[in-house]
Amino acid sequence: MATSYSFSACMLPELMSRQRAPSSFPGGAIGVKLVHLSSGMMKMWPTSIKNHGCRVRCCAVQTHSAHSFLSENKFQLDDVIEAQQFDRDILNAIFEVARDMEKIEKNSQGSQILNGYLMATLFYEPSTRTRLSFESAMKRLGGEVLTTENAKEFSSAAKGETLEDTIRTVEGYSDIIVMRHFESGAAKRAAATAEIPVINAGDGPGQHPTQALLDVYTIEREIGKLDGINVALVGDLANGRTVRSLTYLLAKYKDVQIYFVSPDVVKMKDDIKDYLTSKGVAWEESSDLIEVASKCDVVYQTRIQKERFGERIDLYEEARGKYIVDKGVLNAMQKHAVVMHPLPRLDEITVDVDEDPRAAYFRQAKNGLYIRMALLKLLLLGW
Amino acid sequence: MATSYSFSACMLPELMSRQRAPSSFPGGAIGVKLVHLSSGMMKMWPTSIKNHGCRVRCCAVQTHSAHSFLSENKFQLDDVIEAQQFDRDILNAIFEVARDMEKIEKNSQGSQILNGYLMATLFYEPSTRTRLSFESAMKRLGGEVLTTENAKEFSSAAKGETLEDTIRTVEGYSDIIVMRHFESGAAKRAAATAEIPVINAGDGPGQHPTQALLDVYTIEREIGKLDGINVALVGDLANGRTVRSLTYLLAKYKDVQIYFVSPDVVKMKDDIKDYLTSKGVAWEESSDLIEVASKCDVVYQTRIQKERFGERIDLYEEARGKYIVDKGVLNAMQKHAVVMHPLPRLDEITVDVDEDPRAAYFRQAKNGLYIRMALLKLLLLGW
Amino acid sequence: MATSYSFSACMLPELMSRQRAPSSFPGGAIGVKLVHLSSGMMKMWPTSIKNHGCRVRCCAVQTHSAHSFLSENKFQLDDVIEAQQFDRDILNAIFEVARDMEKIEKNSQGSQILNGYLMATLFYEPSTRTRLSFESAMKRLGGEVLTTENAKEFSSAAKGETLEDTIRTVEGYSDIIVMRHFESGAAKRAAATAEIPVINAGDGPGQHPTQALLDVYTIEREIGKLDGINVALVGDLANGRTVRSLTYLLAKYKDVQIYFVSPDVVKMKDDIKDYLTSKGVAWEESSDLIEVASKCDVVYQTRIQKERFGERIDLYEEARGKYIVDKGVLNAMQKHAVVMHPLPRLDEITVDVDEDPRAAYFRQAKNGLYIRMALLKLLLLGW
Repeated sequence: MATSYSFSACMLPELMSRQRAPSSFPGGAIGVKLVHLSSGMMKMWPTSIKNHGCRVRCCAVQTHSAHSFLSENKFQLDDVIEAQQFDRDILNAIFEVARDMEKIEKNSQGSQILNGYLMATLFYEPSTRTRLSFESAMKRLGGEVLTTENAKEFSSAAKGETLEDTIRTVEGYSDIIVMRHFESGAAKRAAATAEIPVINAGDGPGQHPTQALLDVYTIEREIGKLDGINVALVGDLANGRTVRSLTYLLAKYKDVQIYFVSPDVVKMKDDIKDYLTSKGVAWEESSDLIEVASKCDVVYQTRIQKERFGERIDLYEEARGKYIVDKGVLNAMQKHAVVMHPLPRLDEITVDVDEDPRAAYFRQAKNGLYIRMALLKLLLLGW
Repeated sequence: MATSYSFSACMLPELMSRQRAPSSFPGGAIGVKLVHLSSGMMKMWPTSIKNHGCRVRCCAVQTHSAHSFLSENKFQLDDVIEAQQFDRDILNAIFEVARDMEKIEKNSQGSQILNGYLMATLFYEPSTRTRLSFESAMKRLGGEVLTTENAKEFSSAAKGETLEDTIRTVEGYSDIIVMRHFESGAAKRAAATAEIPVINAGDGPGQHPTQALLDVYTIEREIGKLDGINVALVGDLANGRTVRSLTYLLAKYKDVQIYFVSPDVVKMKDDIKDYLTSKGVAWEESSDLIEVASKCDVVYQTRIQKERFGERIDLYEEARGKYIVDKGVLNAMQKHAVVMHPLPRLDEITVDVDEDPRAAYFRQAKNGLYIRMALLKLLLLGW
Repeated sequence: MATSYSFSACMLPELMSRQRAPSSFPGGAIGVKLVHLSSGMMKMWPTSIKNHGCRVRCCAVQTHSAHSFLSENKFQLDDVIEAQQFDRDILNAIFEVARDMEKIEKNSQGSQILNGYLMATLFYEPSTRTRLSFESAMKRLGGEVLTTENAKEFSSAAKGETLEDTIRTVEGYSDIIVMRHFESGAAKRAAATAEIPVINAGDGPGQHPTQALLDVYTIEREIGKLDGINVALVGDLANGRTVRSLTYLLAKYKDVQIYFVSPDVVKMKDDIKDYLTSKGVAWEESSDLIEVASKCDVVYQTRIQKERFGERIDLYEEARGKYIVDKGVLNAMQKHAVVMHPLPRLDEITVDVDEDPRAAYFRQAKNGLYIRMALLKLLLLGW
């Protein structure tokens, strides 16, 4: 349910920060996110506590900023919670900003557009790779970071505080929250509470939307298009939230053909297959990796997740060795095709593949930086 | 014992930093704290190793700074160790700076007054909330932070190094130390050793002076005065260092009336009662929260600290449910009154209280930021 | 084997960052390190994957920078991996820069020469002291830091990723990597993989080259020379990598006389003794600390490492009390001589020694800051 309101806003100094405005808007439990902008611009929009997806920025007053151009027909981005919140158009728009970020990052002078902004990385479980990527993104844009890797310690797990109370405290110290949590749905709850933007950096078995975005961005950068591509998803398709989210996003594009190549014990689940079918996306299962690889633009390999096998190490070992991307697979692949992997990789891609220009996984990791720079810029400064 | 010395200081470049000056002052074991100021100003004062409380800045040469105005009759602040070190006048002066900090924080441009300064957060036990608050304060003022949450690892606990040796090392890397320690008195020892300012961010069952300051600041901001107020202290009064420190500070004001409302097992201890009596502060114990709430300006609720009950979970459960601040208590309260809580809160304040404007606890947490910004500014730049 | 190449480089924006250039240089497996410089200058040099020691910067185009003067006959510094990589001339050159850093650090304005640069502290085992020293060095020069103290979590130890893969990911987020690892040789492997500079902050029982550098720097600062000095190495000479590295570096100077003073169970090993003999450095073992101290310029005390004694606490206790630097030893020492210690210290130097001006160990710790500032500057900006 998308709702739209209209306000007149002025530059009252008292209103220029992250404060709760009177919640007296029609249409239910509505608050207002006020984000102060270093550019001297103020954004104000009503936020539905219940229905996070329908927040609409109602009003913006631009004073003298050049770098955060606002037009009424641009997309609204308040929080980044799940891959499903993005459609083709907004993905394209984000990718455009990400390409700008590539230029900024490679530029020797760096950028200061987020100078004065403070990001809190609120990690309830450690994920150094993801955390460093976000913190690098923030710092490459001139912003500052408050880090916590043991957020559990001041949460319900420790003394019984609710996530909502923690968020209310942390938002007093920062301008944007990047949260990793062990519970599915935690990011949505945080965003419903926070008056500042929230980015989901993974919530349990749930979502990891920035990974999904960087995967799609990488395919576009490497292959040059997203419509009409053939993609092989290989490895642990039952447990990997990465491939699930990617499948979901690929369904937004035309004439995509998906091949699932996985050991029997970790096959793609029916919900995703049914979803693809309902969206008219062609898919099939195969046990012939070489044959599939020869037809695909993207071979997306994943790690068999040992931790899901419990004591059945025998099953794990069997699954693990089954589909390896090696020189043989590379040789079958087309010249323009690429190998991707969300990392970390064990031996499901052999090391001798690394030097082939079609090995895209380290470029893919680097793209995570550009996507996160883009999201931070969009959430803090707007389009 | 306040001592005053006089120096002539000049801007010798060789002296412009955190160096030990010859300790040849009359009056015992005296060193000198030299703090370099980004404003181009230098402070110099003798420091008594034994008697931390009596340090007096003896001399200051102002060259061309506008933002760190110095006058001879302003207060001296070298370290922040315990609530008792502050009197009414210095509290008022700190609060004035804290109000300036509110304006800076809300200002879209932020501040750079601590640009070039480095704060070390030396935490011997984790306290994410307090740490983030200090680090946000430093960064909001343009300063930088060195973080450690596992300071135990390079302390006596690990290889047997003394706190004093650790401090001597860390002060070589930073301009100010914010320390949390598990031992009462640790902050005082650190301050006696360090030639740079030290802030106590909690030392065991001892002191947590910045929490006490933000509590008093919050009362003044919310109620508009500190003299003549009625305050209810509710919950775990035996174990909470917060309420003990607050009581101590409240005794500095006139016509304060304090009500203690707590389960029998966690009553306020006699030392504080005796102290209040000796200071002429009126206090009484009550078991009627509604009745007390109706008379008070501030209802200060606290969490029953489960960790103090050991295996007597039954006693904990009994104490815990006894005095809850809920809609009923709110209804009894006056319009101008507020509910405070040092956080984290479990269910001793029900969630439906949050939306009432008299629920001041998240504003209180935010005030911690302003108080800490003020203290960092005062300790590094002076008044 | 030193190799030299020549390139013509131009300021193509596309090339201005940390990208792999075509590896088509003569002489084997050669890549190119491209480091973007905030000064607008670009460095490019071929890097031998196999033979780290022989990397040579081939070309540099200076545009408008004043602070990173380049001359063709200056030394090349790509990574800092082991004490052995430095000769007298490069040590002198580094020390000269370190002395400049002392001036910068004491200057109230600080420096911004590394503004825009990002250092990743990738610590596979915690070492707060070393980490804070590097992070302070980076921030004193205006640079920024990405911190991880639990790098194990995204390494082989956790999910089986190789160090090489981790390095390839982290180098995408940063401009320089400071790594501490539990395995000997890890830093060398990291440097062979990374296209950005790597500094070894200790790899297991292997190397800790910045400690060795700061020790030699301290001797020169305190004594005024390195040729012709007498040095006593005291304490745990069997297990201390510090004294081993220091011995190695001292062998590069003329007429150095070394005395080993240690309990029998932790004597200096034969490999170092043989090395000194082969280099013509005079050494002898002694059990008379007082007599040795009276003859030496430097008394370098070390901690007996309890953790190496296993269950033989009796042997540890016996070794530990044997050679203590106390007032008695001080009284025997010459006026210009100094006591050094890598810290942390337990009671192998008594606390009453601290106030003597010859107690150089806290100045020594501080010198670590200057050495690390110098190395960061040299690796990121060149000479």
